[in-house]
Formats: sequence, C-alpha cells, structure tokens
Amino acid sequence: MQRFSFARTATDGKARAGLISTPRGDIRTPAFMPVGTAATVKAMMPGSVRETGADILLGNTYHLMLRPTAERIDRLGGLHKFMNWERPILTDSGGFQVMSLAALRKLTENGVTFKSHIDGSKHEITPERSMEIQRLLGSDIVMCFDECPALPAEKATIAQSMQLSMRWAARSRDAFGDRPGHALFGIQQGGLEPDLRAESAAALTDIGFDGYAVGGLAVGEGQEAMFGCLDFAPDQLPQDKPRYLMGVGKPDDIVGAVARGIDMMDCVLPSRSGRTGQVFTRRGVVNIKNARHADDPRPLDEACRCPACRNYSRAYLHHVFRSQEIISSMLLTWHNLTYYQDLMEEMRTAIAEGVFGAWQDNFHSARADGDIAPI
Amino acid sequence: MQRFSFARTATDGKARAGLISTPRGDIRTPAFMPVGTAATVKAMMPGSVRETGADILLGNTYHLMLRPTAERIDRLGGLHKFMNWERPILTDSGGFQVMSLAALRKLTENGVTFKSHIDGSKHEITPERSMEIQRLLGSDIVMCFDECPALPAEKATIAQSMQLSMRWAARSRDAFGDRPGHALFGIQQGGLEPDLRAESAAALTDIGFDGYAVGGLAVGEGQEAMFGCLDFAPDQLPQDKPRYLMGVGKPDDIVGAVARGIDMMDCVLPSRSGRTGQVFTRRGVVNIKNARHADDPRPLDEACRCPACRNYSRAYLHHVFRSQEIISSMLLTWHNLTYYQDLMEEMRTAIAEGVFGAWQDNFHSARADGDIAPI
Repeated sequence: MQRFSFARTATDGKARAGLISTPRGDIRTPAFMPVGTAATVKAMMPGSVRETGADILLGNTYHLMLRPTAERIDRLGGLHKFMNWERPILTDSGGFQVMSLAALRKLTENGVTFKSHIDGSKHEITPERSMEIQRLLGSDIVMCFDECPALPAEKATIAQSMQLSMRWAARSRDAFGDRPGHALFGIQQGGLEPDLRAESAAALTDIGFDGYAVGGLAVGEGQEAMFGCLDFAPDQLPQDKPRYLMGVGKPDDIVGAVARGIDMMDCVLPSRSGRTGQVFTRRGVVNIKNARHADDPRPLDEACRCPACRNYSRAYLHHVFRSQEIISSMLLTWHNLTYYQDLMEEMRTAIAEGVFGAWQDNFHSARADGDIAPI
Repeated sequence: MQRFSFARTATDGKARAGLISTPRGDIRTPAFMPVGTAATVKAMMPGSVRETGADILLGNTYHLMLRPTAERIDRLGGLHKFMNWERPILTDSGGFQVMSLAALRKLTENGVTFKSHIDGSKHEITPERSMEIQRLLGSDIVMCFDECPALPAEKATIAQSMQLSMRWAARSRDAFGDRPGHALFGIQQGGLEPDLRAESAAALTDIGFDGYAVGGLAVGEGQEAMFGCLDFAPDQLPQDKPRYLMGVGKPDDIVGAVARGIDMMDCVLPSRSGRTGQVFTRRGVVNIKNARHADDPRPLDEACRCPACRNYSRAYLHHVFRSQEIISSMLLTWHNLTYYQDLMEEMRTAIAEGVFGAWQDNFHSARADGDIAPI
C-alpha cells in the first residue's frame, strides 16, 4: 500500500508548490477542494468536477452522518463508490457544522451532543466517534475533531477552546490508529493570537500529524484580520507537511493565503455562487441576472475553457438563470469551479517559475479592470 | 440546400420505420422528441440529450415568445445556437399552451389574445404571427397554428373548432411560404369523431403539408379512447408523410401509437418524472423515494446504459432525491430519456425485422413482471 506523502517541488517567497501522493491519486498543491456536502458537488456530475481540474473533494461528516448515515455508506462500499468519485476525499470532523447548523448543542469535555437540523434526532460526536465516522466513510484525509469558537471572543475563551481542541486532537490521534494510505490532519486553533496559535502548533507537532490545518479563520473576522493571522500562523507549523486553510474562500483570499504558505483550501463559494448567479472571472465578479446581459452574445469569459463559456452566450446564461432552469446552476457551477481550478494551476505554474509576485500583480490588475463594457 | 424528406424503410402491420432527412441531420422514426420548453431540456446538457439517442428536440413557442422572446433569439443567431443544439428542432405553434397556461384568453377568427402567465403582459398569436415566431426561432419543423378544444365536448363544438383550425391551417401554409430545408406540418383535429377526423384530414391534404400531426389527443380522454381514435385517425392521413402524435406519452401509450402507424411523438413525462423521482424501466415504474431503496446497492435497471444505472446504486439515487440534490434530477432525467430512446430504437429494430408483434408481447410481459424484489 502506497503511503500518504507530501513533497514540496518549488517555493517562491512563502508560497509553496508541491504534490501530495495517496493510493487514490496525486493532489497538486496549492489545491482547491470543491465541497461535496451530501455526497455530491451540487449540480455537477463527478466526471465534470474532475474535468475542471479537481484532484480531491471535501465531504461533510456532519451532513453524511445524519443522511444517509456513515454506517449505510460503509455497507454500500464507502463514500467514493457511493458518489462515483474514485480520487481522494477529505472529510471534515463534523465539529464546525455542529456549531453552525445543529440545534440544542451541548459541549462537554467528552464531545458534543446535538439535535439534527433535518429531523431533530439526537446525536453525539466525540473525537473517537468522529474518527469512526470518517473511517466508515472511507475518507483519505481525516480531520481531527475540534471546537471552533466564533470570533470575536475573549482571549481566555479562545485559549480554553484551543486547549480543549488540543486534548481532542490527542484523542483523535489515538482513535485514528495506524491506517496506511490514509492521513490524519491536526487543526491549529487560537483565534488571531500569535501566542495561542504557537501553543496550539506546538501541541499538534508534539502529537504528530500527516498535515496541519489552520482552523478557526474565515468565520467573520474579515480578510485583513485573516491575512494578519496568516502572516504568522502557517510559519508555526511544520515546513514539510501540507498546510490546509479550512473554508477559504474568495479568489483574492485564496491568492493571499497561498502567498502566505497555504497548500490546500476548500469553500462552497464557487458552487453556491453558481446557483445564485454570481460568476467569478479573470475580470472580477459578474452577476448574470443583471439586465445588461440579456442581449449579450459574448461568453462570460473569453479565456475560459468551460462549457458555459465555450458553448453559450451571456444572453443564454441570463435567460436560463431568470427562468430558474437547472442548467443555469449546472453551467455556472461548472464555470466557477473551472475558474477556481485554473486559478490554482496558474499559481502552481507561477510558483514553479519563480514569478509568483508578478503573477499576483497581474491577477489584481485584471480584476481592477472590471468586466467588459456592456454591448 | 437539402430539402426536408421522409422515407419509410420498413412496415410491420400498421407500424412504420423510416427516416426523416433535414439539413440539420436525420431523424430515425419512430422518433421520440424530448421537450426543451424554455431552450433547455430541464436538468440536461444538450450533449447528454444527444447521448441518450435523441435526433430532434421540441421547443415551445408560447414559452420562448414570452421569454426571452423570438426576436431576441433571432438576434442571437436562432434557437439552435442559443441553446447549443445543432440538430433538428420542432416547435409547436403556441396554441395548445396559450389554452392551458395563459390568463384572459380571447379567441376570435383572427387568432388568440392572452396575458402572459409570467408577467401579465398582453400578447396575440395569429396563424401569421405563429409562423413568424417559429421562423425567428429557426425551427426546422414548424407546426400550424391550431385550436385544441378540451375533451369531452359537444360534437358541434368540436366541429366548429376543427373547422376554425382548418382555416388557420390554410393561413399558416400561406404565411409559411417556401422555405427549402424547413417543413410545415398540418394538425388534424376532430376529437374522437371519425367523420370530423376525416373531414380534417381531407382539408389538410388539400392544402398540402410536409407532415401531419394527430392533434387534440392526450388531453384527458384516457388511453382506451385515444387508442380508439388512433385505430382510424392516422389511416386518414397520407401514407408517405410523417405522422406526429402530439404530447404522448407514457411508454405503453407510445408503443400503442407506433403500432397504429404513428412516426413521431413528444412528451414532458420522462424529464418531468425525472425531477419527481418517478423512473421508467423495462420492468415498469420505480418510485425512487420509496424507503425500500435506501440500502439497495443495485442499479435502477441492470440493462440500462445510462450513467445513473452504470455508476450509481438505487441507494445513492434515493439519498440524493431525498436530499433534494440537483444531481437527482440530472441522473433520473438522463435515465428516463435513455429509457425512452432505447424503447424507440428497439421498436425501430423490431419493425425492420418484422417482429414487432412479438416485441410488443415481450414489452408488456416484462412490465407485468414488475420491479425486482426488495433486497
């Protein structure tokens, strides 16, 4: 069995390009992971997700444990087979979404009890149960069970929460055991505080993980505060392991995170925005429901290789969005995911060629130009 | 410019197999036309519709004239380019949907005025305007503007309505003019009355069309009454032109219609049912939302070549339907359209081989067997 491994192939400033190898395939970094919450990247066939350039998907433990349940997915042969995606899958621990979605949460040293947002049924997640669920799903990259406090919060609160997460990280490591070919990532907490982040990084490094996530960001603190934290937090983590920034983000968040040494990210933004008519292009955001597109025969983005841009006019995309046709979600999601993957590919190339600074200047200036003029 | 033409290649009893040739490609008959109401076959990419085996789509004049409008589609290069479907398109005349969807309809000798069901705006369709709209759309097979009365109705009412439709057919023919490569179909009316159907067929044949539709059926009269009418109505139409049964139907409706000499059909059923979890298989209808499928690792239909059957379990399809995921509509529509196209292909082959009677027996006995037993 091939083991999980990570190799940095190039650096440019703090930015890193590399390759994660797993038995289910390689992951080129920096990597963007589309989110397949309920065993589907919404509005996309798995083959189409792969065509966009995705090497790995993210699945949500919280959603899958409630429906169709981890035990059922296990009986059916695991999440990869269930959803027809043979390449790597990373699953989160369930912790973040218990906090954001479930009702009647109760947090103890042992774990969290809560009621399902779907049917009100009662559930518990502990570090041990989270490891079990992620094993039943067949996840390739498993995340430690952690607690993520909302920001802003008192420093003492953040410290206590971080220390609980570190105890849970140790329990997660024990429960995960030795699973060749599968990886367990620790999650750094500590809010925006350098000393707490350092304490968390030290605790995680002592335990020892296959990769490290920067957790607790992208929870409403804003880009400036997030970048401020990313100016020091990734540096506290081991150089030779992948670094994953959870739940990020907008294209400029992603570029700024890569510049600060992040290797992996995930976000629902490209797929969710595809369903609400918000489109990401090299020239910034386009809102397809705007009447200016109704008669526009031009593609969304002339430089884009996706089917929405190759085969359809803005006028068509506007029409099907206004008509609430499913193909609108299909095409705009496909476009947005393609845009995100092309962004990652451009960054990987720029880092490899040692021109990441100039590439960033071009990225920002193209966005500052804004959309093409109305017809 | 290649002209529109039709050749019968085989007959078996009243059933006919043949080929319609158009500049945009051939249509194998008997043909089932998926419905692309608003310039999209709902939940399907056009390439996927083609993969199911469809040679031609149907577009709805009523919907397209309201949104995005025929003039806009014309400015954008026509419906084929707009929706990225290069093969033949048949458009209906708008008449049927004005009657079933629009508000405040007013019928005169000249045409119909009505208010849009989308925004209440006022519109008029006359035979001349219907021809203009269908020309602006770029339709390959244009339908005469007709009136379709709801059944049951008094014979005198049906007769008056049919005679109005025949006057409109003559006006449609005049307004259509000579458009090489494009076809105009007349629509037979007359309810379930043999003498009125014969009068309508004679009137249409006198005018002369490239094909003939049997209209005014599948409007609530039931299969027995419809088959009763189809026992004589197609025979009243020219043998050497395609015969199109509008708005039909369920798989057994389609088989019975082909057995009675019908060459073309359209229906929203496979696509609409795909979105409501009703699945057509060789063993009859499967309701994917039924709890019996929750743990079932087997495909919907082992004999089916579609992605839903090749790549997914019933358990997955059940899960994504219950979770209201878009991929549910995508996969089940793909399956249903594949089932319909495979049904047509089997019938074409059986007719060509002179075994259509035996094929029909097998078709009905497989359905009588019912779905595979629960796991």
